[in-house]
Amino acid sequence: MQYARPLPHYLVSRYSGWKATTYQDNKAWYRRLAAHGQHPRAMIISCCDSRQHVTSIFGADEGEFFIHRNIAGLVPPYSPDGGNHGTSATVEYAVTALKVAHVIVIGHSNCGGVKGCDDMCSGHAPQLLEKTSFVGRWMDILRPGYERVAHLPDADRARALEKEAVLVSLENLMTFPFVREAVESEILTLHGLWNDIGEGGLEQYDPAAKAFVPF
Amino acid sequence: MQYARPLPHYLVSRYSGWKATTYQDNKAWYRRLAAHGQHPRAMIISCCDSRQHVTSIFGADEGEFFIHRNIAGLVPPYSPDGGNHGTSATVEYAVTALKVAHVIVIGHSNCGGVKGCDDMCSGHAPQLLEKTSFVGRWMDILRPGYERVAHLPDADRARALEKEAVLVSLENLMTFPFVREAVESEILTLHGLWNDIGEGGLEQYDPAAKAFVPF
Amino acid sequence: MQYARPLPHYLVSRYSGWKATTYQDNKAWYRRLAAHGQHPRAMIISCCDSRQHVTSIFGADEGEFFIHRNIAGLVPPYSPDGGNHGTSATVEYAVTALKVAHVIVIGHSNCGGVKGCDDMCSGHAPQLLEKTSFVGRWMDILRPGYERVAHLPDADRARALEKEAVLVSLENLMTFPFVREAVESEILTLHGLWNDIGEGGLEQYDPAAKAFVPF
Amino acid sequence: MQYARPLPHYLVSRYSGWKATTYQDNKAWYRRLAAHGQHPRAMIISCCDSRQHVTSIFGADEGEFFIHRNIAGLVPPYSPDGGNHGTSATVEYAVTALKVAHVIVIGHSNCGGVKGCDDMCSGHAPQLLEKTSFVGRWMDILRPGYERVAHLPDADRARALEKEAVLVSLENLMTFPFVREAVESEILTLHGLWNDIGEGGLEQYDPAAKAFVPF
Repeated sequence: MQYARPLPHYLVSRYSGWKATTYQDNKAWYRRLAAHGQHPRAMIISCCDSRQHVTSIFGADEGEFFIHRNIAGLVPPYSPDGGNHGTSATVEYAVTALKVAHVIVIGHSNCGGVKGCDDMCSGHAPQLLEKTSFVGRWMDILRPGYERVAHLPDADRARALEKEAVLVSLENLMTFPFVREAVESEILTLHGLWNDIGEGGLEQYDPAAKAFVPF
Repeated sequence: MQYARPLPHYLVSRYSGWKATTYQDNKAWYRRLAAHGQHPRAMIISCCDSRQHVTSIFGADEGEFFIHRNIAGLVPPYSPDGGNHGTSATVEYAVTALKVAHVIVIGHSNCGGVKGCDDMCSGHAPQLLEKTSFVGRWMDILRPGYERVAHLPDADRARALEKEAVLVSLENLMTFPFVREAVESEILTLHGLWNDIGEGGLEQYDPAAKAFVPF
Repeated sequence: MQYARPLPHYLVSRYSGWKATTYQDNKAWYRRLAAHGQHPRAMIISCCDSRQHVTSIFGADEGEFFIHRNIAGLVPPYSPDGGNHGTSATVEYAVTALKVAHVIVIGHSNCGGVKGCDDMCSGHAPQLLEKTSFVGRWMDILRPGYERVAHLPDADRARALEKEAVLVSLENLMTFPFVREAVESEILTLHGLWNDIGEGGLEQYDPAAKAFVPF
Repeated sequence: MQYARPLPHYLVSRYSGWKATTYQDNKAWYRRLAAHGQHPRAMIISCCDSRQHVTSIFGADEGEFFIHRNIAGLVPPYSPDGGNHGTSATVEYAVTALKVAHVIVIGHSNCGGVKGCDDMCSGHAPQLLEKTSFVGRWMDILRPGYERVAHLPDADRARALEKEAVLVSLENLMTFPFVREAVESEILTLHGLWNDIGEGGLEQYDPAAKAFVPF
């Protein structure tokens, strides 16, 4: 790969600093993790957004969470058509190989992907409708959620759609036979969260209230 | 979604601690990020593996890196067929919307996804060959890499294949027209890294040496 | 300007080396910074002293910190009298235009400016008392700090005064209406640090302890 | 100072990494610098802009450059009126106490301060004309430079004004008696540079050509 370039120097410096401190102080744990494999207790599905670090929010150590991050933290419906389904592969690996006890889907405020979906579905982003738009085709997953909030005024709809993204993903997770089976066997639980980036807020979906409720 | 369950208490406790300390101490920055959006300098593509925290290795603050994580940190080839291509959507968003300056692909030692690919391609994991195996179909992306290391003895092949995963992803990145264009316009650089989890090592691909070289 | 002279050759050589390496490796990021502007997360106010590189201590990349450097890292009190107040202009620009989330004031050991203030206030540097002494008139800003440590023995006073310089600057920052307003709105936080150059030490001011405390 | 807050955690981590690597590897030099004082060969006057690190461009070690950074890297005219003149104090300290051999003024492309001056002088930023605008009053220093480029078309004027900022500062430096005397005694030389951030370019003022010329 002749295009690969050297890493920026400041990142090399920071890595060297990490190696001399965090790694050095935790060497035994890193070696144990390498030798005995990972045994994460939970899978977290979140957005790629640079502003949300679930490892920070949940004080995570190396080895605790198996983390999949994609645009808006979406899970597509079960579709075993032989294609390269990256998200479905992560769910399959987490549930059937790692046997995590929890799958946590976490959405967030100010989500650019969800905003794009809102623009696309409300007719304000024709470029996202094109077949060649990967972001548009990915956000198609959220269309069922958009239908449920389309009647809301503009000001409320984006936030409501961010929360629908979590619910659509949870619904789609249940279409995977191995997920449904694990949930029904009570060896796996699903959780839906929404994080307010600016205010540091966290809400979880409460099926009884049929709403996201702050902690 | 009637299946959603309350978050385990220990995670609620950790979140509360984070809110009272890290969030409280950085409230101004979180609010700025929410109000003014993200301007990450780099996209990082890494594995979901719970043992690898690139934010820790690179001393990253919220806002610095747009992070996509999937099984083995793979990028599929460009394929605008209208399907739900989650990884392609993340690359498109990072390069065309966020205009990141760097895309860093980082593989790692002891990678379960790569091990599965090796087993599958060498005939030891027939279940991964089935059409319904999402992990198998995802790891198909790495088959061109397997071909290049298939001749190696078992003991060396897994590690070599982990590094091939980085190279295949870099090669596939260059099949995306908007990536190639940005690279050739010198507004984007690609970087390939491999991290030894147990030893805290970091190597980067050097096109001149045609090999991964430690820092 | 007929007095301008050619740059010393060793600096031209070093620049050429930087251009061929660091710039070349980071060209994409520099171009992004030029095209899309700076979005620094923090302002750092430090001394001009050649021995203190905060970009090194904090592993900073281009684009991260808006840095003002003057003698002793002092901030004068708010005084909108129409004069050329360089430091006040930097604070105004950082807080109201760039909307940084943090202002970090960092003092240091062995500070020549602070030593001059100590000499001046204790009667050992009459030349600094003259109206024409720019250094003396600048260090007048620190006189309230000197009053608080004047009773200390000579051996302890210089270091105590270095730390007072940080506190006086923080106090003066709060006299700027736009700083106070941003702090009270919790979109800006102030931080006071002191760096031991010889020992590589770093202490931060802890209001509860009313003292600088090492990390 | 009850407003001081703890330093963000990622900065503490990075500092710890620096302490364990860069400091540890250079401890002897840092201790020598602390014990024997600084002997910088040059003073550099540059902008606070986060995108310009002269220590990187000139491969500077701790101890080499006495660096003053303010908005646009300006030097006001000599004015010994007893006020707090921060920039004048830095020049006085560098030339009379440290006896630097060079004063290098370096401007840069995409300078927000210079852009503000252009807007203000061309009547597009009335708020900068108010007595209470510290940025406006600071940029008043550049008005003589604006007069010289006012006739240029908008597209060319901003860049020309960035270079005028360097020339005005050099002119003002020569109004300081101790600077003029040192220059005329040939124990000090002045240098004017302009840096193109996006392209990594560097030009120096050539009095013979009466223009900035690339290296």
